Amino acid sequence: MSRATDSAQPLRLGIAGLGTVGIGVVKIVQRHAAMLAARSGRPVTITAVSARDRTKNRDADLSDYAWETDPVALATREDVDVFVELMGGHEGPAKEATEAALKAGKDVVTANKALLAHHGQALAELAESLGRTIRYEAAVAGGIPVIKSLTEGLAGNGMRRVMGVMNGTCNYILTRMEEAGLPYDTVFEEARQLGYLEADPNLDVGGIDAGHKLAILAAIAFGTQVSFDDVVLEGIGRISIDDIRRAGDMGYKIKLLGVAQMTGRGLEQRMTPCLVPSSSPLGQLSGGTNMVVLEGDSVGQIVLRGAGAGEGPTASAVMGDVMDLARGMRLPVFGQPAASLATPTPAVTAIAAPYYLRLQLSDKPGALAKVATVLGEAGVSISRMRQYGHADTAAPVLIVTHKTTRDAIDAAISALPATRVVEGEPVAIRIEEL
Amino acid sequence: MSRATDSAQPLRLGIAGLGTVGIGVVKIVQRHAAMLAARSGRPVTITAVSARDRTKNRDADLSDYAWETDPVALATREDVDVFVELMGGHEGPAKEATEAALKAGKDVVTANKALLAHHGQALAELAESLGRTIRYEAAVAGGIPVIKSLTEGLAGNGMRRVMGVMNGTCNYILTRMEEAGLPYDTVFEEARQLGYLEADPNLDVGGIDAGHKLAILAAIAFGTQVSFDDVVLEGIGRISIDDIRRAGDMGYKIKLLGVAQMTGRGLEQRMTPCLVPSSSPLGQLSGGTNMVVLEGDSVGQIVLRGAGAGEGPTASAVMGDVMDLARGMRLPVFGQPAASLATPTPAVTAIAAPYYLRLQLSDKPGALAKVATVLGEAGVSISRMRQYGHADTAAPVLIVTHKTTRDAIDAAISALPATRVVEGEPVAIRIEEL
Repeated sequence: MSRATDSAQPLRLGIAGLGTVGIGVVKIVQRHAAMLAARSGRPVTITAVSARDRTKNRDADLSDYAWETDPVALATREDVDVFVELMGGHEGPAKEATEAALKAGKDVVTANKALLAHHGQALAELAESLGRTIRYEAAVAGGIPVIKSLTEGLAGNGMRRVMGVMNGTCNYILTRMEEAGLPYDTVFEEARQLGYLEADPNLDVGGIDAGHKLAILAAIAFGTQVSFDDVVLEGIGRISIDDIRRAGDMGYKIKLLGVAQMTGRGLEQRMTPCLVPSSSPLGQLSGGTNMVVLEGDSVGQIVLRGAGAGEGPTASAVMGDVMDLARGMRLPVFGQPAASLATPTPAVTAIAAPYYLRLQLSDKPGALAKVATVLGEAGVSISRMRQYGHADTAAPVLIVTHKTTRDAIDAAISALPATRVVEGEPVAIRIEEL
Repeated sequence: MSRATDSAQPLRLGIAGLGTVGIGVVKIVQRHAAMLAARSGRPVTITAVSARDRTKNRDADLSDYAWETDPVALATREDVDVFVELMGGHEGPAKEATEAALKAGKDVVTANKALLAHHGQALAELAESLGRTIRYEAAVAGGIPVIKSLTEGLAGNGMRRVMGVMNGTCNYILTRMEEAGLPYDTVFEEARQLGYLEADPNLDVGGIDAGHKLAILAAIAFGTQVSFDDVVLEGIGRISIDDIRRAGDMGYKIKLLGVAQMTGRGLEQRMTPCLVPSSSPLGQLSGGTNMVVLEGDSVGQIVLRGAGAGEGPTASAVMGDVMDLARGMRLPVFGQPAASLATPTPAVTAIAAPYYLRLQLSDKPGALAKVATVLGEAGVSISRMRQYGHADTAAPVLIVTHKTTRDAIDAAISALPATRVVEGEPVAIRIEEL
């Protein structure tokens, strides 16, 4: 029987996963015991911990806590009120132990974006059928209190759009390419050696990790079931240093940007490279910092910025959730009962936007006119254009279009080879207006 | 008897004050009835309203609501669960009605920073002795969910520093002076004509309004009783277009910046003009937008940005509080029981910082050496210096010092007249490091 709502009693945590975040949580509970008790009205304690390797040397004293080899055993202990899941992975032990914890009457706090992106709806329904909840501030944008801001602070808003740079590694790579003038492959290798990349780097540079986060935000913002499979994913692997520089010349930065918005044709979710104005808050974001932009019909635009990863920031987010539970504050997993969440209709790039186009033009008379004609026939009109010097046989041309659809851009691109004046593959990147 | 925690029943609001914010709240409740009910699990309704002038033409249909001439009568109605106080003013009806509401068993939602800055401790003690709470997200930085982020999201952090640009009018004036090259008096008059200024403009340009907000944030961040009287206040009236331009030359912007931090000598709270790096998020903030920076020992630096005023943003914040109450989420007014808040020891500018100094130097040989000597004798060392052309008899000299104390700067300034090479009053502005 959970005591999570009995304020006279301590709130007892069972922590599964003792990597940097788990140890960060342990340190906060130990260092700030008096402060946490003052703020929540009850002690916050740790009963038991669990990790794969008991013998590993860790940066915290764990001797007061029971050790469980099996996370399910930890999650179901009589003396645990809240199961803190910091193992990661969307199948296997994390899912199993989360389900076991809920069934044993525990609330769950997790940093596991993959788990929620893949199984959020089922887990939320399970939790709510049992009168429990799952909290996951640490799953999205590290230390930034974005889940809380969206679910609670902006609860009076019909949300219009949610955007974010939510993978620090990608933003680091793009910033480093720009600042050092290095190609993607070199910076990717640097990032790997610095330990910035996941074991499967495609989780980072392929946009999957950030896509998980976007799908979670979209569910809360639009009252729809998490639908990660509908997120249009495009990684940063095809971004060249040329595009970064030339976008810069036109007043833009390239970011791996997540955008979710409800359109007349359904829910649009995409995590793709985008151009954003250099002078905008998103454009000014460099390095590993995260930023989330929340747009509501009353509040307008709220921008939240902070560390998206790391021991302290992520542990801070976990503890924010723990403190809410200690204070007896609980709400449905996605802000409204899971059973009431709508099934979203996916809409792919339904909203018109300007695009950045980069073409290699062969040095033939009338080449540019031919390109302009093809664009015009596809319904794409040109806002700004810049042609670079003819140092090589092929000269790069940059075009910023007026607002158009992805379909029109794709139609134009597929009609370009017939002109015989375009060399190589044209690059088209959406410009997100802020 | 309040029904605020009975989730089967509607949450019934009584709204006192029908200016832009009050009408904004009415509009949200009307427009988003279904969404609010889905998110909170219960209908959110308005029972009664109150304002000074019943006959005024308002941009909302109020015909379904009871009208009360007396806000106290509104606050104590049987059929009101939450008293929404949007009248303003720290004495008189706002205070009286808030107290009456609490005593009648209602929770209170308010946008009234002055009320909380002056009477926050007493009101919190009253509320908590009665098992009620007061929510005030709208009182600080408009639509930005900063109270929630600090009190809840960062509850696991020992806070190090809280900063903010929280008066949009001042930031508008400073931005406009810079961009249009206009003197303070001209832009002040513009702002008055645009209706940006309070009836008593000193509330804005004197830093009082922003000081109220800072005092509230400091209480939450450091677990101390609100102590507005200890806030060092300095308005923007003495900022010249010269200083704005010359700070810009040195890589800084001038902002009316609030800073609260706990030092070894006590709680430092100041709302004064400061220089911030032009490239920092605070430096890039222009116009009426607000920004709050929260620094915690685990989370590092979180930056929140959004509209600090206006119907929609402020009503959004009020509704965030209302939704928390509708969801049964409640916590002590300042995040921990009011009775446990410490009495702060005020520390004035205890933390060393670099300073910007502007002097008018007379065109005498050795003038600069004399100034440098006086600074050195006061313990102020020079980091960077720039001397402008000798167009007039007196040439401006800009100095950026190394970290020093306000006492040392003041000592240096009072020793300068004796050198007989400095004309007029030297200007010294603290540089806040970010």
